[in-house]
Amino acid sequence: MRLCGWVLRSKTIGRVVIVEVSGGDVRPYVLVGKQDLNPELYNTLSTLPLGSAVCFEGEPAREQKSKRGTEFEVKSIKVYAEPIEPLPVELVGKVPSLLETRIKYRWLLLRNPVEKAIFRVRQSIVQAAREYLVNNGFMEIHTPKIVAAGAEGGATLFKVQYFEREAYLSQSPQLYKQILISSIPRVFEITPYFRAEKFNTVRHLNESWGIDVEQGFIESMEDVMNTLENLVAYIINYVRDKNKEELETLDVELPRVTTPFKRLKFEEAVDILRSNGVEVPEGEDLSDQAERELGKIMSEKGNDLYFIVGFPWQSTGFYYMREEDGHHTRKFDLDFRGLEIASGGQREHRYDKLVEALRLKGLDPANFSFYLEAFKYGMPPHGGFGLGIERLMMQMLGLNNIREAVLFVRDRTRLVP
Amino acid sequence: MRLCGWVLRSKTIGRVVIVEVSGGDVRPYVLVGKQDLNPELYNTLSTLPLGSAVCFEGEPAREQKSKRGTEFEVKSIKVYAEPIEPLPVELVGKVPSLLETRIKYRWLLLRNPVEKAIFRVRQSIVQAAREYLVNNGFMEIHTPKIVAAGAEGGATLFKVQYFEREAYLSQSPQLYKQILISSIPRVFEITPYFRAEKFNTVRHLNESWGIDVEQGFIESMEDVMNTLENLVAYIINYVRDKNKEELETLDVELPRVTTPFKRLKFEEAVDILRSNGVEVPEGEDLSDQAERELGKIMSEKGNDLYFIVGFPWQSTGFYYMREEDGHHTRKFDLDFRGLEIASGGQREHRYDKLVEALRLKGLDPANFSFYLEAFKYGMPPHGGFGLGIERLMMQMLGLNNIREAVLFVRDRTRLVP
Repeated sequence: MRLCGWVLRSKTIGRVVIVEVSGGDVRPYVLVGKQDLNPELYNTLSTLPLGSAVCFEGEPAREQKSKRGTEFEVKSIKVYAEPIEPLPVELVGKVPSLLETRIKYRWLLLRNPVEKAIFRVRQSIVQAAREYLVNNGFMEIHTPKIVAAGAEGGATLFKVQYFEREAYLSQSPQLYKQILISSIPRVFEITPYFRAEKFNTVRHLNESWGIDVEQGFIESMEDVMNTLENLVAYIINYVRDKNKEELETLDVELPRVTTPFKRLKFEEAVDILRSNGVEVPEGEDLSDQAERELGKIMSEKGNDLYFIVGFPWQSTGFYYMREEDGHHTRKFDLDFRGLEIASGGQREHRYDKLVEALRLKGLDPANFSFYLEAFKYGMPPHGGFGLGIERLMMQMLGLNNIREAVLFVRDRTRLVP
Repeated sequence: MRLCGWVLRSKTIGRVVIVEVSGGDVRPYVLVGKQDLNPELYNTLSTLPLGSAVCFEGEPAREQKSKRGTEFEVKSIKVYAEPIEPLPVELVGKVPSLLETRIKYRWLLLRNPVEKAIFRVRQSIVQAAREYLVNNGFMEIHTPKIVAAGAEGGATLFKVQYFEREAYLSQSPQLYKQILISSIPRVFEITPYFRAEKFNTVRHLNESWGIDVEQGFIESMEDVMNTLENLVAYIINYVRDKNKEELETLDVELPRVTTPFKRLKFEEAVDILRSNGVEVPEGEDLSDQAERELGKIMSEKGNDLYFIVGFPWQSTGFYYMREEDGHHTRKFDLDFRGLEIASGGQREHRYDKLVEALRLKGLDPANFSFYLEAFKYGMPPHGGFGLGIERLMMQMLGLNNIREAVLFVRDRTRLVP
């Protein structure tokens, strides 16, 4: 077989040279050259400059002695490129502790098994999600990212100059996936989200990716929560089974997830927090701080993953269905150890109520005419959610900063690389 | 089993009522109610308003008499929503001939088997592509869509206000996928492309989707062309095998594709065109018109899919590798019956030559510093391509306008829905 990668580390012990090559797999290929057996190969391996791009022909060694990676019996090796400057960062061992360095040199640090493992898990998350959704009858769609109006109002929209007109970047496929529920019973999209939030925290990105799902013909919000909890369990258990080497490299133990997840009413969450001495101002959404505290309390009770349901209407988007009491909505969050990783709920599918909701939220129904139109022709009860890929990764892998979960960071100050 | 959808058509013949329901499958579910056998069901089915959203419990009938879809023995049926206004478009039979209507009401027309078939094929294309690429060692990535500089210069960039700074929407992941080849041997992304081209033709969109691939450690441009032709053959044969009902509904016959595809040098293409009386101005790229003519000539020779290779340097992006003659490049197009569906080639991976190429193209290397940096540390020879999903769909399904291949159209004038 032919394998390719970059010389990560090289060591000569007497008449034996050991070269580690970082390729497509998370663990390096380990090439061993013995002067006595093959002097030519020994010489080539001994003189490979650090960081060179090489391919070799070989087979996995019968005896696997190295713990660092898979050992190969090498037949031939060829150099494709050599560094023209010394490597600007160390690529073996621990990844740099300075976040700035990690973000700047991510494209190079990916040669490090730790950095690479993170993004191989990311790929698995996306694969697992698609597998689960397609197997459950969801159709994959692509909706526009340049839009005329945002689902959540103007404050967090990035402006785009679209020829003569002013347009925006899509905050989420919310409006589009909903109108498709007037003709396709179940849809999903793997999509970038663009949010001009000015936060500069460890849990916010201005360009992030999500798994966005919408499901029609539901009986209640529970149907949507079932889909979400089963999806998340499927993803985590998939990574647990298929990414053993990655998890080992990252020193992460991922317990098998079972469903159902605990459901906590919003008021219950507030009560739990208050009885644990956390202040929660009346009529407000939970702060990041309160979410974290709740996470600790829930984890102690054995609930790493739990829903918070029935958010008050004043803190939600216009499209969530309100309960009869006019105060509660069918909106839920899914929290993972104190971090909201998904948000969703049952939508208002009744035309009149939807127009009323827009007005109550101070939005002009005229700006949503194509969206409203779709509610006139047999729009079934429906609901859905957006699951943040980077946030899920943070909690699965114990990353300290969401910027570790994305190849190229877009935040309050970063536009390059 | 429980199935859901919308009442598409209903017909009563004496004591038998036949209702077609458009659900998740391309062909409708056919529900038959006989007054003599089950008067209650007969009554319910007879009075279902057109366009209603319904779910039913039932099993496929032992005897399948209907040619329209799959017949079901219905145990129970429930109405989830009814239209509050008459349907604005006809949802059975042929799709509306007016493109404007199709674009405006796509979210509703998807109840029509013809419209739905198109987007089920689209889903299959994306699934097949991922399957092929993952099985061949390509890692799925997500690169930023908000960028500081475009791969192809400023003329076709949409401007975005990114907080205090001016930024752009990504024309393609070109620069990002390339720099990742300094640490991951093979990558791909399914991604939106944003191009502010002012064309208003049947083959251009301003927001489109593509399958973007980059491959390191290549011996020549041929390695990249092999990946592309095998990918396209895999996709087409996958749809041919898995979407028989969709193809039948669309009245499309898709011949099995075999590789390799014919390779045509750019000069050969020009010669063929000229000897067939088509004018091709010296030193220019092929016009859309010339491409179409060439398509006809090639199809007559049995080549529906063919490469054009070695485009002249003056008409290509700065990142293509130039041949020693300084005139030809290792850029290719893949054409499908006269339409360019993919474009790619071998890249310049040598730092000095790349800086020179930027200067020759009148671009300032300072604007590409993060990109150039990645070429200093063992960048192997590499190449890749972008394959346009909508253009591939057009040619596979014989669509007349690229706007038929995308759920929501973004073109020179359309920003809604």
